[in-house]
Amino acid sequence: MRRFTPMETLMSTLATLTNHQVRLAARPVGLPTGANWSHTSEPVQEPTVGGVLVKTLSLSLDPAMRGWMNEGKSYIPPVGIGEVMRAGGVGVVVASKNPAFAVGDHVSCSPGVQEYCLIAEGEIKRYSLAKIDLRVGSLTQWLNVLGMPGMTAYFGLMDVGLPKAGQTLVVSGAAGAVGQTVGQLGKILGLRVVGIAGGATKCDWVVRELGFDACVDYKAGNIKDALREQCPKGVDIYFDNVGGEILDTVLTRITRGARIVICGAISQYNNTTAIKGPANYMSLLVNRARMEGMVVFDYADRYHLAITEMAGYLKAGKMKSKEDVVMGGVQAFPDTLLKLFNGENFGKLVLQVAAE
Amino acid sequence: MRRFTPMETLMSTLATLTNHQVRLAARPVGLPTGANWSHTSEPVQEPTVGGVLVKTLSLSLDPAMRGWMNEGKSYIPPVGIGEVMRAGGVGVVVASKNPAFAVGDHVSCSPGVQEYCLIAEGEIKRYSLAKIDLRVGSLTQWLNVLGMPGMTAYFGLMDVGLPKAGQTLVVSGAAGAVGQTVGQLGKILGLRVVGIAGGATKCDWVVRELGFDACVDYKAGNIKDALREQCPKGVDIYFDNVGGEILDTVLTRITRGARIVICGAISQYNNTTAIKGPANYMSLLVNRARMEGMVVFDYADRYHLAITEMAGYLKAGKMKSKEDVVMGGVQAFPDTLLKLFNGENFGKLVLQVAAE
Repeated sequence: MRRFTPMETLMSTLATLTNHQVRLAARPVGLPTGANWSHTSEPVQEPTVGGVLVKTLSLSLDPAMRGWMNEGKSYIPPVGIGEVMRAGGVGVVVASKNPAFAVGDHVSCSPGVQEYCLIAEGEIKRYSLAKIDLRVGSLTQWLNVLGMPGMTAYFGLMDVGLPKAGQTLVVSGAAGAVGQTVGQLGKILGLRVVGIAGGATKCDWVVRELGFDACVDYKAGNIKDALREQCPKGVDIYFDNVGGEILDTVLTRITRGARIVICGAISQYNNTTAIKGPANYMSLLVNRARMEGMVVFDYADRYHLAITEMAGYLKAGKMKSKEDVVMGGVQAFPDTLLKLFNGENFGKLVLQVAAE
Repeated sequence: MRRFTPMETLMSTLATLTNHQVRLAARPVGLPTGANWSHTSEPVQEPTVGGVLVKTLSLSLDPAMRGWMNEGKSYIPPVGIGEVMRAGGVGVVVASKNPAFAVGDHVSCSPGVQEYCLIAEGEIKRYSLAKIDLRVGSLTQWLNVLGMPGMTAYFGLMDVGLPKAGQTLVVSGAAGAVGQTVGQLGKILGLRVVGIAGGATKCDWVVRELGFDACVDYKAGNIKDALREQCPKGVDIYFDNVGGEILDTVLTRITRGARIVICGAISQYNNTTAIKGPANYMSLLVNRARMEGMVVFDYADRYHLAITEMAGYLKAGKMKSKEDVVMGGVQAFPDTLLKLFNGENFGKLVLQVAAE
């Protein structure tokens, strides 16, 4: 009787495993609730020729997820009703029929909110499957500074914000995933950097740990006065993650030729009425300023360059990263996601699905 | 007894003349009324050495005037209470102690709402005093295509709109001073051009006389449906003169990488409450699009190049211009200005102050 090959042994093990998933059950109105999700499970399947099976280790929880749950045209198709919720993540290859990926390789991809992700050969690009090197950054850093938030920060600031040393950069959501990196990059580039965040704890951390010049606590009172004090020469670049009243207030403080990077509007994502447009947008005319949207995927061809640069900053101690890691598996996804919208997360929100 | 020199004769004539003026008496709330203006008169004075006396022939009436009446920081200081209302215009030199300007020269300048404008040598630049050539364009064309509206159209479209042949350009206020030239330039550059204007008469004229591909009547019904029909490939450039609901509607139709030129927001200038911000501004993110303000004065160094180009189009019959000339002298200024805000003007609004 012939011996089983290692792959055959692995496959027989896989067949005993269950893949727990979280699917979109209904489109939310306002904040998502339990009724918007369904929890399903199915047997783990082996990859087809050229394919890979990834075990999810950690998932990236991002404000953009709220947008993906909505019907209608956006920069990416919405998640369909009944589909596994879209999510970026990091994992480990547990079965491979593709020579480019070996069992045990760490990867980043878009596995969705499930414990195992089966990726066919033709879907490798769609899943953004790529090997990651844990000597360069930790698993959670690969979801943060070296992942989508870091890439968003890098290209949003560099390509849309057009930073110049000595100018003043304001970034909202300063303690969040994108904001923390935007501000630190600004400091590396020689800008005055003022964050906006909620609560003294976050603001203190942004200044003391990340080295921002100042951080305005939007929960503490008059943002306009605080910005006037902290940005005496006005705001040359505003990197906006929140929208709403804060965007409108910053518009009153911009300089001539200012650039406003529209990266997100988390304050508006769960509105059940029309979102609040920036009433002070005519400040763009008075100041010959620009408000421009960006989507990180457009810069995919240059991710590797940004990752190399950011990894250098991490190694040199010029950049720190903070992740808010929630343990709990995919079942905890619905509740954990809400932390983003009530401002509870402190740093990049990560859901740990499995230990290695 | 010696004979009088021609200048002495002129001066003695001038001394018999009265300069009627319209001054800002109080800052308006909402639409300006009679109470916002005072009518004054004073004797005409002779120029000092290096100075020039200009007799106003026609004044340019522009939506921007409403902004100049407001308190507070803008791209230009507000008109002070008691000051002659700021206005661009064309006139004729009636006395000169400056060798660069001879009696009888036609000039463009910013005389304000008054019959005579005395310009000291040191103020020539501030008044934008420049000779104009009536062989190149008529007096009113020098207030329109060859004047500030034309320059605004040219640099707004070229430098901020970044037109490319084959793309779709939408311009609001299409029958107005800036809009008519934006659209005609767009056609010269090979774009599909769709105007937005109020009423069938204006829309017909914009299409038949100016050669726009289409014109949407915003008074006729659903702008969104009309834009969908007329811009089947979406809107690559939106040149916005009106703001408000129309801006918000166009935002739903922009293409990836679209440019929105913020030139004005006439629908909002007389608001007594907060202006309506564009609720659909997140379309900028989805479409990686840009909304950018512009002020024509920034391009002063290049006016002469644009004038030469535009004069060529006029001469070649490639560009038409329409002025809505109101007779009536400076006394008619307060009522005539209101035509802009109720959409009554058809073409560039001009107030004729004096015949030559």
